[in-house]
Amino acid sequence: MKTIATLAPLTTRLLEIQRINSASSLLSWDQETYMPAGGGEARAEQIAVLQGLAHQKLVSPDIEKVLSQWVDAATGQAFEQPGDAWDEPSRSLLREVWRDYSRAKKLPSDFVIKLSRECSLAQQVWAEAKEQSKFSQFLPNLRTVLSLKREETQYLGYKDSPYDALLDVYEPGSTIAALRPLFAQLKARLVPLLKKITSSTVQIDDSILRHSYDQARQLEFGRLVLIAMGYDFERGRLDLSSHPFTTSFHPTDVRVTTRVHEYELQSCLFSCIHEGGHGLYDQGLDQRYYGTPLGDSVSLGIHESQSRLWENCVGRSRAFWRFFYPILQQTFHHQLRGVDVEQFYAAINCVKPSFIRVEADELTYNLHIMLRFEIEQDLIEGRSQPDDLPAIWNQKMQDYLGIVPKSDAEGVLQDVHWSFGAFGYFPTYTLGNLYSVQFFEQAKLEIPHLEDEIAAGQLMVLRRWLEQKIHRWGRMFTPDHLAQRVTGTSVNPEPFLRYVEKKYGEIYQL
Amino acid sequence: MKTIATLAPLTTRLLEIQRINSASSLLSWDQETYMPAGGGEARAEQIAVLQGLAHQKLVSPDIEKVLSQWVDAATGQAFEQPGDAWDEPSRSLLREVWRDYSRAKKLPSDFVIKLSRECSLAQQVWAEAKEQSKFSQFLPNLRTVLSLKREETQYLGYKDSPYDALLDVYEPGSTIAALRPLFAQLKARLVPLLKKITSSTVQIDDSILRHSYDQARQLEFGRLVLIAMGYDFERGRLDLSSHPFTTSFHPTDVRVTTRVHEYELQSCLFSCIHEGGHGLYDQGLDQRYYGTPLGDSVSLGIHESQSRLWENCVGRSRAFWRFFYPILQQTFHHQLRGVDVEQFYAAINCVKPSFIRVEADELTYNLHIMLRFEIEQDLIEGRSQPDDLPAIWNQKMQDYLGIVPKSDAEGVLQDVHWSFGAFGYFPTYTLGNLYSVQFFEQAKLEIPHLEDEIAAGQLMVLRRWLEQKIHRWGRMFTPDHLAQRVTGTSVNPEPFLRYVEKKYGEIYQL
Repeated sequence: MKTIATLAPLTTRLLEIQRINSASSLLSWDQETYMPAGGGEARAEQIAVLQGLAHQKLVSPDIEKVLSQWVDAATGQAFEQPGDAWDEPSRSLLREVWRDYSRAKKLPSDFVIKLSRECSLAQQVWAEAKEQSKFSQFLPNLRTVLSLKREETQYLGYKDSPYDALLDVYEPGSTIAALRPLFAQLKARLVPLLKKITSSTVQIDDSILRHSYDQARQLEFGRLVLIAMGYDFERGRLDLSSHPFTTSFHPTDVRVTTRVHEYELQSCLFSCIHEGGHGLYDQGLDQRYYGTPLGDSVSLGIHESQSRLWENCVGRSRAFWRFFYPILQQTFHHQLRGVDVEQFYAAINCVKPSFIRVEADELTYNLHIMLRFEIEQDLIEGRSQPDDLPAIWNQKMQDYLGIVPKSDAEGVLQDVHWSFGAFGYFPTYTLGNLYSVQFFEQAKLEIPHLEDEIAAGQLMVLRRWLEQKIHRWGRMFTPDHLAQRVTGTSVNPEPFLRYVEKKYGEIYQL
Repeated sequence: MKTIATLAPLTTRLLEIQRINSASSLLSWDQETYMPAGGGEARAEQIAVLQGLAHQKLVSPDIEKVLSQWVDAATGQAFEQPGDAWDEPSRSLLREVWRDYSRAKKLPSDFVIKLSRECSLAQQVWAEAKEQSKFSQFLPNLRTVLSLKREETQYLGYKDSPYDALLDVYEPGSTIAALRPLFAQLKARLVPLLKKITSSTVQIDDSILRHSYDQARQLEFGRLVLIAMGYDFERGRLDLSSHPFTTSFHPTDVRVTTRVHEYELQSCLFSCIHEGGHGLYDQGLDQRYYGTPLGDSVSLGIHESQSRLWENCVGRSRAFWRFFYPILQQTFHHQLRGVDVEQFYAAINCVKPSFIRVEADELTYNLHIMLRFEIEQDLIEGRSQPDDLPAIWNQKMQDYLGIVPKSDAEGVLQDVHWSFGAFGYFPTYTLGNLYSVQFFEQAKLEIPHLEDEIAAGQLMVLRRWLEQKIHRWGRMFTPDHLAQRVTGTSVNPEPFLRYVEKKYGEIYQL
């Protein structure tokens, strides 16, 4: 049986590439957290050089030569003879490296460098445009990025839609054809559910979340929850950025960010829990495999399942607040002394069509995603133009959520994704929602008294389960295979729909 | 006349290398400021990969080919024909690139990567060892680093001493032979001056500096002085680190750090001004030349002259405090209301043998350097061993300053330099002191009423003069040539000695 030791000539090279990529990630983290405003242009060039180098190294004849002795270039499968097989990690490693290599090979290095530079710049312009709520300011950069991404789909190739070429990067194996029925199923049951809720006699008062809350204390509480979740601050940090995110340079250095608003208690709280879920995944990857696909997260959908599981299934549950609410109440004694845990639970689960995706409730969230999913398909397939985006956006908001944003900042400019070229990224958020409930239901079956543990503030048992079942495997299995291993089925909207119907049926007495 | 445009095939390549180096500098900055403790090993490897890449690219056949069409490999001089000459920037650029290239060419890439990795690791171990004040903990790493640096001198080659090979990296053109008489001259006049001061009847009470000062306010005041100096926060930041430093990734992103101690008002204050002086140099480099030697600082001695000029000639002068003391007094009303500006001026200029170099007064500072200069020569020349360092250190402290540190932390472990392999670095501090006074005396000659400007808080006129005379030239001239252009002479201890004799003669009524 051949093992990973045999692959040393490959893994050594991958390790070097990973270190360049990790450096590049630090440059991006710094850009979003501490970089002075004037440093943006030089930074874009520095990141572009590193990404270009990593790309060049991955597609080098060197790697091709090493790889082609083990992998069949036609099928991407590892060569195996009876009596001379690879062990499972090696087979997976070869499959995934081949995937990365053959994808990278399709892109010219010049293109990679250009795309990287334009995306860094566009991201900075987006931030300013959002600040000023002026879509027109961002439009030229968006045009450039979109045209590069469309060019990319031509390099990558696709069967049905150029959009599939982009989607596959974030969610290996996923296609529009597979996603459409999922979204249709969601729409068919979420829209009626939403209607019932908005016409329910139960009115939830969530104004308590918009009182004044000291920002430093909000951060302190967020940090406390992260520690309880098992996020390791010896191997991580919590910083501020305008858009919360998680990034990792190695399982020993995984950083999360949050934002704090004095008058929005939810914002810091749930972004800490959400990013903490991402952070646990990255801290839970197997260090021994750092640099190889086995030390990397498997897909954005699975990654998002971790953040949403913690944010929603845990962080918006009664059990969680049974333990944490008295602490929160103590932290904000003045604001919360008259509010009991049931009122608080209702407030953080208030369903209400709103403008901002990241602050949407569990129900309307997926409608926000649907809208983006449709818009970006049209952009990539050339059916609509960047110039028309604000109008398209507002029309779809009206159609799906019945509200129209008053400004670009709370409309089409709210998300960072398109600015850095992440078309095909949004659907993974909905996949994450679906997976999160599938995984959590499974955890409840396998962990005795899980809800009691959570209600006692004992979150580590869940963290360990996730680490064993999901985190430590990296890209050993495909996302679909992993879901089947853990839950017995592929991605499936049913558990999610049952979960929201039950939870909100009860809250809104439907 | 051939210009820099001709050199595009070279400068494009240099730009790429510079961007890799800038990325590596950001990784180091992060290591010293925000990196979580667990991230150190992975970070050392990431930096090593980037430094190895930058080195490989510099010594690539590609660069050699481009360079050898313009530069005589035997002499390092640019080829020139009558009627087909280079303009001065191009000639300097070629001279300096040749210098970097031929030095780098002597070092195997594997060695560069190994040295980088060992230095990052040693620096982290040093920080822990210092914290615990345990030299023995750092000793194995110091041995490794020293032996690598000695190996480096063999690759680099030298005429008189292997130490010269290292010195030349930091201070081009400098040698032990040239430095010895400078130090002898300093010793001959500083030691008697110090004796007179310690036996003077004037006793300065500097206890006011050791009252309790709110740390946030100290930082705020440091920031205010930086702004007054013209340090541009749009292109820079101020952060905390255990050892204050300045680093630059581009003239649009130059970062300084400081430290704050509640009971040491001087520490944050003067490290802000000191690092601010470094920061102004890096912000003042010509952006158009970024990536080439003309966009790089010329030597550590000249760099240090900028920090010391601001810290001492400006920041410890009466004129400076005439403007800033009332503001400081307002900031720390409670502590300083009964202290007049003359008392404060005396306190910050109190001369007293002490253990910590960076907090030493202007006089004893150079004795701290002499001691290090001698020790590191002996280490590099193999006359003494790392194991004996604490004993040697303490003996020399006794000999030069008449005091013996009670712990390794305030003795041999106090400086970071040896941990990252910076042998040959210390003498540039004394060169910086000498140059700083030479430059400041010249500025007083050329800027009408400079001291009145300073006393009015108008520091920009001095900043502009330094930018015009020194910063913007990068490595256009050698350090010696630059000093001659600005002041008419090479480095010269005389102005410094006159300055301290006058200043301290007056303060101590000698």
